[in-house]
Amino acid sequence: MSDLAAISRKANFPGLVNADGSVWHYLDSAATAQKPQIVIDAVARAMGADYATVHRGVYARSADMTLAFEAARRRIAHFIGGQEEELVFTRGASEAINLVAQSWGAANLKQGDRILLSQLEHHSNIVPWQLLQDRIGFAIDVCPLTDEGLIDLDAAERMLTPQHRLVAFAHVSNVLGSMLDARRAADLAHGVGALLLLDGCQALARLPVDVAALDCDFYVFSAHKLYGPTGIGGLWAKRDILSQMPPWQGGGSMIDRVTFARTTYAPAPQRFEAGTPAIVEAIGFAAACDYVAGIGLEAVHAHESALVEQTRAALRGMNDVTLFGPEDSAGIVSFAIDGVHPHDLGTILDEEHVAIRAGHHCAQPLMEHLGVPATARASFGIYSDEDDVAALLRGIERTKRIFG
Amino acid sequence: MSDLAAISRKANFPGLVNADGSVWHYLDSAATAQKPQIVIDAVARAMGADYATVHRGVYARSADMTLAFEAARRRIAHFIGGQEEELVFTRGASEAINLVAQSWGAANLKQGDRILLSQLEHHSNIVPWQLLQDRIGFAIDVCPLTDEGLIDLDAAERMLTPQHRLVAFAHVSNVLGSMLDARRAADLAHGVGALLLLDGCQALARLPVDVAALDCDFYVFSAHKLYGPTGIGGLWAKRDILSQMPPWQGGGSMIDRVTFARTTYAPAPQRFEAGTPAIVEAIGFAAACDYVAGIGLEAVHAHESALVEQTRAALRGMNDVTLFGPEDSAGIVSFAIDGVHPHDLGTILDEEHVAIRAGHHCAQPLMEHLGVPATARASFGIYSDEDDVAALLRGIERTKRIFG
Repeated sequence: MSDLAAISRKANFPGLVNADGSVWHYLDSAATAQKPQIVIDAVARAMGADYATVHRGVYARSADMTLAFEAARRRIAHFIGGQEEELVFTRGASEAINLVAQSWGAANLKQGDRILLSQLEHHSNIVPWQLLQDRIGFAIDVCPLTDEGLIDLDAAERMLTPQHRLVAFAHVSNVLGSMLDARRAADLAHGVGALLLLDGCQALARLPVDVAALDCDFYVFSAHKLYGPTGIGGLWAKRDILSQMPPWQGGGSMIDRVTFARTTYAPAPQRFEAGTPAIVEAIGFAAACDYVAGIGLEAVHAHESALVEQTRAALRGMNDVTLFGPEDSAGIVSFAIDGVHPHDLGTILDEEHVAIRAGHHCAQPLMEHLGVPATARASFGIYSDEDDVAALLRGIERTKRIFG
Repeated sequence: MSDLAAISRKANFPGLVNADGSVWHYLDSAATAQKPQIVIDAVARAMGADYATVHRGVYARSADMTLAFEAARRRIAHFIGGQEEELVFTRGASEAINLVAQSWGAANLKQGDRILLSQLEHHSNIVPWQLLQDRIGFAIDVCPLTDEGLIDLDAAERMLTPQHRLVAFAHVSNVLGSMLDARRAADLAHGVGALLLLDGCQALARLPVDVAALDCDFYVFSAHKLYGPTGIGGLWAKRDILSQMPPWQGGGSMIDRVTFARTTYAPAPQRFEAGTPAIVEAIGFAAACDYVAGIGLEAVHAHESALVEQTRAALRGMNDVTLFGPEDSAGIVSFAIDGVHPHDLGTILDEEHVAIRAGHHCAQPLMEHLGVPATARASFGIYSDEDDVAALLRGIERTKRIFG
């Protein structure tokens, strides 16, 4: 597996080192990814020598920063196969879904309408819809999963009706790594006149994403899971849909003209970006896209799939381990060990400098479906390698000895 | 004025240098402040060697980051005289006002109610209320200004009625630098049973702020105007008020328990922080508070007031210059030159490495009141000094020769 070794690039990531200089086996990239030095440097430069506000200054530094900020928007939009005027910067994927709910949803959903979510959604793709439901009173249907842990699109096909206005699914499950057949989901949604929202948080860092080819209507994501800064993410939406969505948050930059008698609003995407934007974060986000594009998401996916296969094969050999999710999950392996609480496993692994996540992963309805309060989750990134997997397996063996 | 020289600390700010190594006379700190190296370093460290997610990880690095993140919340809350459980992190002041409008406002305002804003408010303290007004139908009253350009609290006293539920005023005007007598505003609001929201964007970097002494109910602010990162700000609210506000945005971290049947929410402030927070930005924000506290806001205010006095005195001596706002403005001087559009002034000043802002400053109703489409605005920061003022005055003289 020399290609794995070649793609492993721990040295670029200052976060992957313990205080004593040893390697940190970071297997929690699905929670948040470590940042390459080139992204940190882009952020430091944008906060320092290049710093100025955007869209307003009459001086050259501000004009330059505005160009850099809008170039970042273009870069990120192109990274997912979209256009810059279709990309709204948000704090992250959660805010992007809230924006769709409270702008598009509040304007388009009414009592008697239905929306379709799935059993494996992250809380951020459930709660915004429940909050809006409290206000408006539409129905929320829940698409079941296949035995493998995929969103069951055959069931979705049977469930969808002309009353459905929206289907909102995770492109990749943050717990199981299940990959959605997004194009089929789009066709099913459109078949009944509904729109499709994809929660791309996990997918964007793990799969090549082309919103035009997927034919989705909304695509949401967070930079920090794509090796970029915290505090920024995006909502991509089809131009015609975005341009008709009413404003959600008011403030500077999103207006055309303000008077106390009547205020008019700027066109999208500015209409949805009230206040001074996350300027530095946008520039760091674009740097992260460049970094990942330089490796190539086909290569990233192949790399992570090999690590998943290796991990699952080893865990499958342990008769006290339960594996969740499909064989071909995207970069994420959830599992449980008989008689060992995932938190205890996580704590013991930490002593071995191995970081995994243990818990409900902000997906309590999925835990209910799996019949467990929590899982242990190992998730990979572009810097993960066979040493990390070996460290994980050693730690699991040690844990089993302790609890055995 | 040796104390001015002593406090000037341009060397700490990598943004205050032009590409050719000369000094950049940055007089646009009211738009956004430059960042000291110590804040940039804190951000780079948080993105690198210290990076992990918060509130979730079972490993030590995440526990450490959670401690650092919550220590940042405590530090920032204390910086304004508040407590950590009263501080919600937002993207900035604009989002904080939208949060108050859409959570507190939507739950507490009804048709027949009134709120009181002022003629000098930033769009971010006007438009969120108009958006909510469209939905609910309460009335918005506008408090006039004194001849000097202060919010006229005598007028406010006459205007306030028991129908008023909220008064929302800028603590310091972003155009005129006018300082509000915030305590009197609080007493007036409370006298009729209304709450007081203060937009502290400009005040926080220019005056000592103590929310307890001011007795306001909501205080909103942005980190980037306080020498901190973009992408983060805060809402401080009195504990009893915040704890009763319903959730606004849904997602991870803000819930207690999620099921498709019924979801319950976390207590404040977490209830208002859906999704992975701006972890790195919070840490950078706290570092900025430490930096400013190390100088002391009394000293900052005295320093900026001396620069304002010097600038106004020089401009007052030019008979083709109109000065706006009160003599004792906080760090901000707005003016116009007969026959010279502010944008042209800004462009010519830029050639001299002097950066000012020219425009409506996101305060179109105030421009209407002043009877001008735009003003030129010079605004100071802790790094500003007499050389910057001299460069501004030289540039103004040159502009007048060009247009003369």
